[in-house]
Amino acid sequence: MKDIIDGFLKFQRNVFPQRAKLFKDLATQQSPRALFISCSDSRLVPELVTQREPGDLFVIRNAGNIVPSYGPEPGGVSASVEYAVAALQVADIVICGHSDCGAMTAISTCKCLDHMPAVASWLRYADSARVVNEAHHHEDGHSKVRAMVRENVIAQLANIQTHPSVRLALDEGRVTLHGWIYDIESGRIDAFDGSTGDFVSLADNPQVHAISHPTKHIA
Amino acid sequence: MKDIIDGFLKFQRNVFPQRAKLFKDLATQQSPRALFISCSDSRLVPELVTQREPGDLFVIRNAGNIVPSYGPEPGGVSASVEYAVAALQVADIVICGHSDCGAMTAISTCKCLDHMPAVASWLRYADSARVVNEAHHHEDGHSKVRAMVRENVIAQLANIQTHPSVRLALDEGRVTLHGWIYDIESGRIDAFDGSTGDFVSLADNPQVHAISHPTKHIA
Amino acid sequence: MKDIIDGFLKFQRNVFPQRAKLFKDLATQQSPRALFISCSDSRLVPELVTQREPGDLFVIRNAGNIVPSYGPEPGGVSASVEYAVAALQVADIVICGHSDCGAMTAISTCKCLDHMPAVASWLRYADSARVVNEAHHHEDGHSKVRAMVRENVIAQLANIQTHPSVRLALDEGRVTLHGWIYDIESGRIDAFDGSTGDFVSLADNPQVHAISHPTKHIA
Amino acid sequence: MKDIIDGFLKFQRNVFPQRAKLFKDLATQQSPRALFISCSDSRLVPELVTQREPGDLFVIRNAGNIVPSYGPEPGGVSASVEYAVAALQVADIVICGHSDCGAMTAISTCKCLDHMPAVASWLRYADSARVVNEAHHHEDGHSKVRAMVRENVIAQLANIQTHPSVRLALDEGRVTLHGWIYDIESGRIDAFDGSTGDFVSLADNPQVHAISHPTKHIA
Amino acid sequence: MKDIIDGFLKFQRNVFPQRAKLFKDLATQQSPRALFISCSDSRLVPELVTQREPGDLFVIRNAGNIVPSYGPEPGGVSASVEYAVAALQVADIVICGHSDCGAMTAISTCKCLDHMPAVASWLRYADSARVVNEAHHHEDGHSKVRAMVRENVIAQLANIQTHPSVRLALDEGRVTLHGWIYDIESGRIDAFDGSTGDFVSLADNPQVHAISHPTKHIA
Amino acid sequence: MKDIIDGFLKFQRNVFPQRAKLFKDLATQQSPRALFISCSDSRLVPELVTQREPGDLFVIRNAGNIVPSYGPEPGGVSASVEYAVAALQVADIVICGHSDCGAMTAISTCKCLDHMPAVASWLRYADSARVVNEAHHHEDGHSKVRAMVRENVIAQLANIQTHPSVRLALDEGRVTLHGWIYDIESGRIDAFDGSTGDFVSLADNPQVHAISHPTKHIA
Ligand SMILES: [Zn+2]
Ligand SMILES: [Zn+2]
Ligand SMILES: [Zn+2]
Ligand SMILES: [Zn+2]
Ligand SMILES: [Zn+2]
Ligand SMILES: [Zn+2]
Repeated sequence: MKDIIDGFLKFQRNVFPQRAKLFKDLATQQSPRALFISCSDSRLVPELVTQREPGDLFVIRNAGNIVPSYGPEPGGVSASVEYAVAALQVADIVICGHSDCGAMTAISTCKCLDHMPAVASWLRYADSARVVNEAHHHEDGHSKVRAMVRENVIAQLANIQTHPSVRLALDEGRVTLHGWIYDIESGRIDAFDGSTGDFVSLADNPQVHAISHPTKHIA
Repeated sequence: MKDIIDGFLKFQRNVFPQRAKLFKDLATQQSPRALFISCSDSRLVPELVTQREPGDLFVIRNAGNIVPSYGPEPGGVSASVEYAVAALQVADIVICGHSDCGAMTAISTCKCLDHMPAVASWLRYADSARVVNEAHHHEDGHSKVRAMVRENVIAQLANIQTHPSVRLALDEGRVTLHGWIYDIESGRIDAFDGSTGDFVSLADNPQVHAISHPTKHIA
Repeated sequence: MKDIIDGFLKFQRNVFPQRAKLFKDLATQQSPRALFISCSDSRLVPELVTQREPGDLFVIRNAGNIVPSYGPEPGGVSASVEYAVAALQVADIVICGHSDCGAMTAISTCKCLDHMPAVASWLRYADSARVVNEAHHHEDGHSKVRAMVRENVIAQLANIQTHPSVRLALDEGRVTLHGWIYDIESGRIDAFDGSTGDFVSLADNPQVHAISHPTKHIA
Repeated sequence: MKDIIDGFLKFQRNVFPQRAKLFKDLATQQSPRALFISCSDSRLVPELVTQREPGDLFVIRNAGNIVPSYGPEPGGVSASVEYAVAALQVADIVICGHSDCGAMTAISTCKCLDHMPAVASWLRYADSARVVNEAHHHEDGHSKVRAMVRENVIAQLANIQTHPSVRLALDEGRVTLHGWIYDIESGRIDAFDGSTGDFVSLADNPQVHAISHPTKHIA
Repeated sequence: MKDIIDGFLKFQRNVFPQRAKLFKDLATQQSPRALFISCSDSRLVPELVTQREPGDLFVIRNAGNIVPSYGPEPGGVSASVEYAVAALQVADIVICGHSDCGAMTAISTCKCLDHMPAVASWLRYADSARVVNEAHHHEDGHSKVRAMVRENVIAQLANIQTHPSVRLALDEGRVTLHGWIYDIESGRIDAFDGSTGDFVSLADNPQVHAISHPTKHIA
Repeated sequence: MKDIIDGFLKFQRNVFPQRAKLFKDLATQQSPRALFISCSDSRLVPELVTQREPGDLFVIRNAGNIVPSYGPEPGGVSASVEYAVAALQVADIVICGHSDCGAMTAISTCKCLDHMPAVASWLRYADSARVVNEAHHHEDGHSKVRAMVRENVIAQLANIQTHPSVRLALDEGRVTLHGWIYDIESGRIDAFDGSTGDFVSLADNPQVHAISHPTKHIA
């Protein structure tokens, strides 16, 4: 904990003064342009990877970057999505998975989760990705985890489209959905291309996105 | 979205290379020392405020930095807490509220949330803070919101102690709980002192903490 | 009730004997080719409208032809969808709304449902359709109900894609989803065209369908 | 799917014109006299077996013809029952099981349902029938399934009596409950006789019914 | 609290010694013959009213002597009923309401319960009694509360019959259900007579009971 | 049942007349000073052990004297706690476990509860006590059960502090929490001392209590 406190003291001494004007402007309002949903994993820092400043990203983080589909007992993710889309009117939503994800590894290796019942229960929201991934052939365990990470992002993109606030924003053409995979070792991001169903390099395809209209599907 | 993509390209070009060794070491494992639970608010970036690097903080972020008490239908916060404490064995848990919180403002001004039913439902997990705060006298609306932010941190500290993984870790003396309030305008952090029940300046009291033992209470 | 009993006696006397061979074949097995999901409304009889015989259609009927998105507390619709897709391996799923639907009328006229709390609760699964429909301009109440019926079918098509069994079947290319609106007065059916996002006459467009592949979307 | 589309075209061409007057009368209202609750099974078509026309039967169909008891999270069956009884004021409710029911077979043979978790969850609403049936002696597996189908109808008759709308209607003497078993191979229906607790041939006992008063029981 | 502690000291000093043998026999086992379900109300002490000793009654007490119908999320009442019937094999179950019940008064006077949301939620399990009672004519508010207390006992008798353990015990003829109303002022108990649907004096009708067989109803 | 009826007749004849005045005073109001939460176990009669009269104790009894933490689906215990604290304004809350508790024995011996699913589900509210107790060393099974009974009382004291009504009352200094263990064989009560975290003899320490202030903890 000492490191964290020392870090805070360093922030107060060195970092805050440089941004004093920014923080003053932010003191009574925020108007982030994007909602960023990623894993709680310590290795993926959304603001670092996108080089964003305070005030730029509204962030949801949980184990497995999961977005439960909408239902009568909405929890924290549903509430935060609703707040971001309906109140803050974000223009973009990024669902960002990552390599070596502990949650996706647990799912794809069928690791026993009896001693972590809350984790087991939560990961059921990735069931639709899991059953699809189980039905595919994988070279080895490593490939299977990698594929699971991708299927999970695709499944959460389906889940988020059941949220009223998201459907309305899509219908009004004021939000775009993005599905990303961040690779820890290489710093590369692959993005889901909704027009082809493939993941492509974000650096090479900066315009790529997953969904920008609610009612059309490739028939 | 262009800013975010440009930020990522800048990250790849300038920031990643400087940390290539760190990211290589982190590619297949994480061992964060702390769980940091804060609001989704764009203005509070945990890793910036504590000057932490990738790999240091396991982070949960949701509207209102809420931790539902443990029950038979655990959601994303419960799962992420369990994973952090039982699997990653973090030594410290920080629940960090902040000034001008939209969620706490909604609660303390009784703002109508009919058009945001998921938010309304989620904020019920702050009910125990709300009823306490409603019963107190406040100078004005601004003071009431400030007090609500604090009561909420205290209430979530109570909630998190109902989680089996947390109780076990407290019982084994391997986790310490911290309750913080970050002030956006001044960059100051006040921390809850469990021995007095007051919030004090973290900079002046770097040893302060909320709870480090499960079974003792001021009688 | 007398009419119903008399109807049954007539069935036994006149109708059953003609189909005795069919019923004998069906005595110990069913292999329906399609899952038909429609409203409980008495005026829309799936087997009559599609001129299907016993053994042809696996049928789910509830107020509003609603398919809750998948979650940890699956109910009767989720179970029946799972059974149809995973066990019976149906090749087509039709979600069929209809004109003058009492459920959709209640939603679009904001009729007070305090005296029918279970109906009010159930119709929340059409919330994503409701908020989209509320945001549109409608000529009059009648048009608004008609539009609500359509938005509801589109929303339920989104919901059903969160079901693991459906995602797997779509991924394996062995199921096609259809969204229909049956007009009671004219006997006409309009079908949702996933390639354009419009509803078109089924009689004129017998090949039209909503979705046949899980991962592609119009970007 | 081609058969279904062709069936619809045939309906439009041949069947609809004969009933054009009926459908015109039904265009803006329904007043069904009965609520019919049966299995989603493709082999039991309620309107065929009772020779009913469009407008006659309000129909709920789900896997296992199950009626969850009333609780704080009412689902689709509860909503549809409430709408039928409170809004449409049906005079009779038929809960109709059938021979060779896949759901009841799964229960009575303890078939592993791990790959169909939604089905497993849903069938717990038949638990009270299952434990009673397990405690009885059965000649063989076939007899056990047959008995399970009957116990299930009896259990659902108990469940439906916990619904406020049903209790009120029973109290006011304006609804009668019926429990039926339809035999696919023979076309026979057996009905539960509430005065004796036995199932008897409906053809021979057209007056038989299960319950017509809420507060009396054989002591 | 001093009174309670003094009472305990008196118990230790005077009451325990007289029953030392009984308590020694009970130290490692209980075999109560009955399950007694009554309100948390301080004025109705089950063991006093029935002059029972420790070891005689397994007791459930909650606000309103409510027994939720059985469902997939069983709570404390369901668990305690199951334990009493399946594990302890009690031969009788008494559901005992009482005069001047605060819970029933709140329901029948439509008292605003906004400040007690948990109470409001819990009392929904008495909804089927409430809607029946609302539909009846009552002389005055006092009569309405009295009637509500009775309807509630009848409704809870319906609810408890959806519990698997109870249905099995009824089916095996090893449990009898009783519905009682205790009048605080007079010390009188009225019991529900399942053969007539009326409440009668228990003192005058010691044999009366509500239900002793699961499958028969007055048709 | 005859014993119970005879007991009631004896109550009416002998016991009621002696307290006729008390019951008359209680006929239209109760003002209990304490909420007593104990197990449904037949061997622990709260009013006997504390020598209290009708009107003195508001009592909640369920298998395992469990108090679920507060959440969006409050059940009977939450409602009864809320009513006692917010409406009746009790000054003390006692959570009382006991020796040889069947529920705690089931937990600590990992007894299979497959045949009692409602009990298994309910006992999950003691999970935080179970995992702590599992991690400790115990001399033998008997010691383990004894320790489980104690850990459970401590865990339920944590749970009850998540209830809004309790937090408010603690904050206003108008309620004190007590954690007791009653020993059936000896009639002894041990009470949890919040200032030390130990259980001590209540007879020797009549002032001992668990918690009387919400926001202070031993840091
Ligand atoms: Zn991860
Ligand atoms: Zn905030
Ligand atoms: Zn309809
Ligand atoms: Zn069936
Ligand atoms: Zn009461
Ligand atoms: Zn016990």
